[in-house]
Amino acid sequence: MKIWKIDRGTFLRLIAICLVVLCLTCGIAYASGGSEQSIDPSKVLLALIIILLAAKLGGDLMVRIGQPAVLGELLFGIIVGNLCLCGCYSVDFIKHDVSIEALSELGVMLLLFQVGLESDLGKMMKTGISSLVVATLGVIAPFFLGWGVAAIFLPHESIYVHVFVGATLCATSVGITARVLMDLGRIKTPEARIILGAAVIDDVQGLVILAVVTGIIGAASTGATMSSLSILMIVVKATVFLIGAILIGTRLAPRLFKIAARLKAADLLLATSLGICFGFAYLATIIGLAPIVGAFAAGLILDEVHWRSFTERGEHSVDELVKPIAAFLVPIFFVKMGAGVDLSTFADPKVLIFAATLTIAAIIGKQVCGFGVLQKGLDRLSVGVGMIPRGEVGLIFAAIGSKLMIDGEKVVGNSTYSAVVIMVIVTTMITPPLLKWSLGRNAKKKGKKDQSVVLSK
Amino acid sequence: MKIWKIDRGTFLRLIAICLVVLCLTCGIAYASGGSEQSIDPSKVLLALIIILLAAKLGGDLMVRIGQPAVLGELLFGIIVGNLCLCGCYSVDFIKHDVSIEALSELGVMLLLFQVGLESDLGKMMKTGISSLVVATLGVIAPFFLGWGVAAIFLPHESIYVHVFVGATLCATSVGITARVLMDLGRIKTPEARIILGAAVIDDVQGLVILAVVTGIIGAASTGATMSSLSILMIVVKATVFLIGAILIGTRLAPRLFKIAARLKAADLLLATSLGICFGFAYLATIIGLAPIVGAFAAGLILDEVHWRSFTERGEHSVDELVKPIAAFLVPIFFVKMGAGVDLSTFADPKVLIFAATLTIAAIIGKQVCGFGVLQKGLDRLSVGVGMIPRGEVGLIFAAIGSKLMIDGEKVVGNSTYSAVVIMVIVTTMITPPLLKWSLGRNAKKKGKKDQSVVLSK
Repeated sequence: MKIWKIDRGTFLRLIAICLVVLCLTCGIAYASGGSEQSIDPSKVLLALIIILLAAKLGGDLMVRIGQPAVLGELLFGIIVGNLCLCGCYSVDFIKHDVSIEALSELGVMLLLFQVGLESDLGKMMKTGISSLVVATLGVIAPFFLGWGVAAIFLPHESIYVHVFVGATLCATSVGITARVLMDLGRIKTPEARIILGAAVIDDVQGLVILAVVTGIIGAASTGATMSSLSILMIVVKATVFLIGAILIGTRLAPRLFKIAARLKAADLLLATSLGICFGFAYLATIIGLAPIVGAFAAGLILDEVHWRSFTERGEHSVDELVKPIAAFLVPIFFVKMGAGVDLSTFADPKVLIFAATLTIAAIIGKQVCGFGVLQKGLDRLSVGVGMIPRGEVGLIFAAIGSKLMIDGEKVVGNSTYSAVVIMVIVTTMITPPLLKWSLGRNAKKKGKKDQSVVLSK
Repeated sequence: MKIWKIDRGTFLRLIAICLVVLCLTCGIAYASGGSEQSIDPSKVLLALIIILLAAKLGGDLMVRIGQPAVLGELLFGIIVGNLCLCGCYSVDFIKHDVSIEALSELGVMLLLFQVGLESDLGKMMKTGISSLVVATLGVIAPFFLGWGVAAIFLPHESIYVHVFVGATLCATSVGITARVLMDLGRIKTPEARIILGAAVIDDVQGLVILAVVTGIIGAASTGATMSSLSILMIVVKATVFLIGAILIGTRLAPRLFKIAARLKAADLLLATSLGICFGFAYLATIIGLAPIVGAFAAGLILDEVHWRSFTERGEHSVDELVKPIAAFLVPIFFVKMGAGVDLSTFADPKVLIFAATLTIAAIIGKQVCGFGVLQKGLDRLSVGVGMIPRGEVGLIFAAIGSKLMIDGEKVVGNSTYSAVVIMVIVTTMITPPLLKWSLGRNAKKKGKKDQSVVLSK
């Protein structure tokens, strides 16, 4: 992996170019008065141009220094969102524009749909009991650690906030770890299989926790406290929904595709799969779960076999069709997430220390995962390290939390939100070098062992 | 072309199935209370599901009876939009939902971007003077005919409304005629080349007229009347923008793609071309033109040559990347257009007669085009018939008109809007059979001539 190999001059020049282009765009926005007076379509267009620029320039910069592109989208989002601190308010509307929010919500749904499409139910079963134990440990430990940290740093906030912060630490981002393992040529090792399986199970467990926590907060916002029975009900509902969706969906989907294959309109494969994705997302909202839970379930049940009659006619497969749409919409979500970080909250050193402690809790919490590896002789440290990145799923939790209200106040306030995003950024940034080191260390050890075996012979 | 060949039973059964599925979905929407109480994301999801269903079922039905799919999207849009007449108000929110509107506006921009991508500047020049004369005649005649019809039927409305109705009759839909000519294997005849060239020039002239008319109405809404000098200014501005965009764009685009090719982030080709599309659309709004003018110009200047460095790496071309996004967003525009038709306006027989007269004016107006064919021995009637369909461009005009206001009233009111949509639907529906007949008639004549030549020999 050729990362970190760029001379300092080029790097600084690149950063300079990126910043200049971004500032120029924002300047044009300012000069042309992208403020209240202008009509809506021009605002949305301007926002889309700035987001595309920020996403791609930021992505380029991060890829060049060996980091995942998503980090660049977040960081440049933070820049765009905090230009108001330098007195440039002309792009501030990006944070609140309704159209951009709708596009970003569609984006995150498509992202989870894609994650679902990539996860293979059958393979998940094979990595078996180790993945399940690793995932469960990796959810429980960070959850309570995060809860504790929040309780210490935010004593004046309600218990719901503490629980929610704990929940944001649960999920593991499959994407980033998978990418690093692939780059290192280790994707087929038993450790990799355990990590990827556990990450998917983590997603499911995280979504269930999210459903429970939002359910509790939803009840609290109407003044009711929840009995343990109603909490159990939510767990049951979420579990039944996911299992039910998978059971019914795997039977229903092939029929829907068969009907679609008989229709004569164009782009039926795309329409059918998007319809299933939106349909499951809608069902999820109906029973009180987040739409992303449904989108993920829809992705899980769809399988290449279903659209064979389409691909045999020479049409593109669902992954290929969804990819450009996601490539357009997903960066909108991440840039908007970054833009939501209010850097001025860090003027309070307490928030900075909170963010740092939360990050440490997030890292330590996942090291418990190593103990879940049941097979002997495997690299437990690498499994723990591989589970560190929170990536998109932690952000999605934070985004949902910032929309929940108790007594007219946001559950995840500005400073908590900023701390969570910083935690996501740091955990995501340290994983690639850490995992590389951890796997290298293990390879050396094995190499030595092999040598000593050879010598003793 | 195997059109109209479906037995009546199958046809009726199909209509029945489509209606049942649509009603069921709307019923679910009703039962689950898709009304004011539910939160936004679930509403948007429900709207998207209904739109996808309506678009694909409607498209299937129309393709089966040999009509373009877009008609089905419009017709099923009308059904969805007028369910309130049967007392079902649960899907009425589709007409007013902000997120759906944003998606539909992006859709129409991408549609014009695609039309621009497909139009080849070089080929347009080759069909030469005939296309230009045909296009100009085909814009002037329907414009004044439409103006006259509107003046007769809407005497109490201001002159601006009459002018706007005239403007909706100008444009020709390239897509529908091209599709029919392709299906008949006549796409390479001189007549086809003249029609397609003229249709593209029509689009450009139509966009200039749209700019002028909206400019006049915009000035009128602030109480000012426009001098002929300011009208000239708008014509100059629109022309300069289009020519300037093409001149500067063709020089700038290759450089942008070159820079993009050096960046390391993913999906750069898509991001760059969407960025150019949104950028030109934004510039158009800045100087007071419709965003679609900019999107069309962006499509015109982009050329395969620009992204050769990407396709050589094995990436998809821009057309292929934009296609799935357009396939998702464009039907939203058409279903929403259909949903905007208020069938109850036709309870007034005057509106029905207005719609019928407008349709006749639209058909007769384009027959003048035949006189513009300068070459001898060509089938003038077919050229005139080929220019009849108004398709998407007429709808876009109507959509823009329904947003313009004078003295707090819509320029294109409900009944006028409905009449324009009916005109678009009828002109689009009659073209395929009419063109087939007209080309067939000509082929027979030629056949007879050839025979008589043979006989006289």
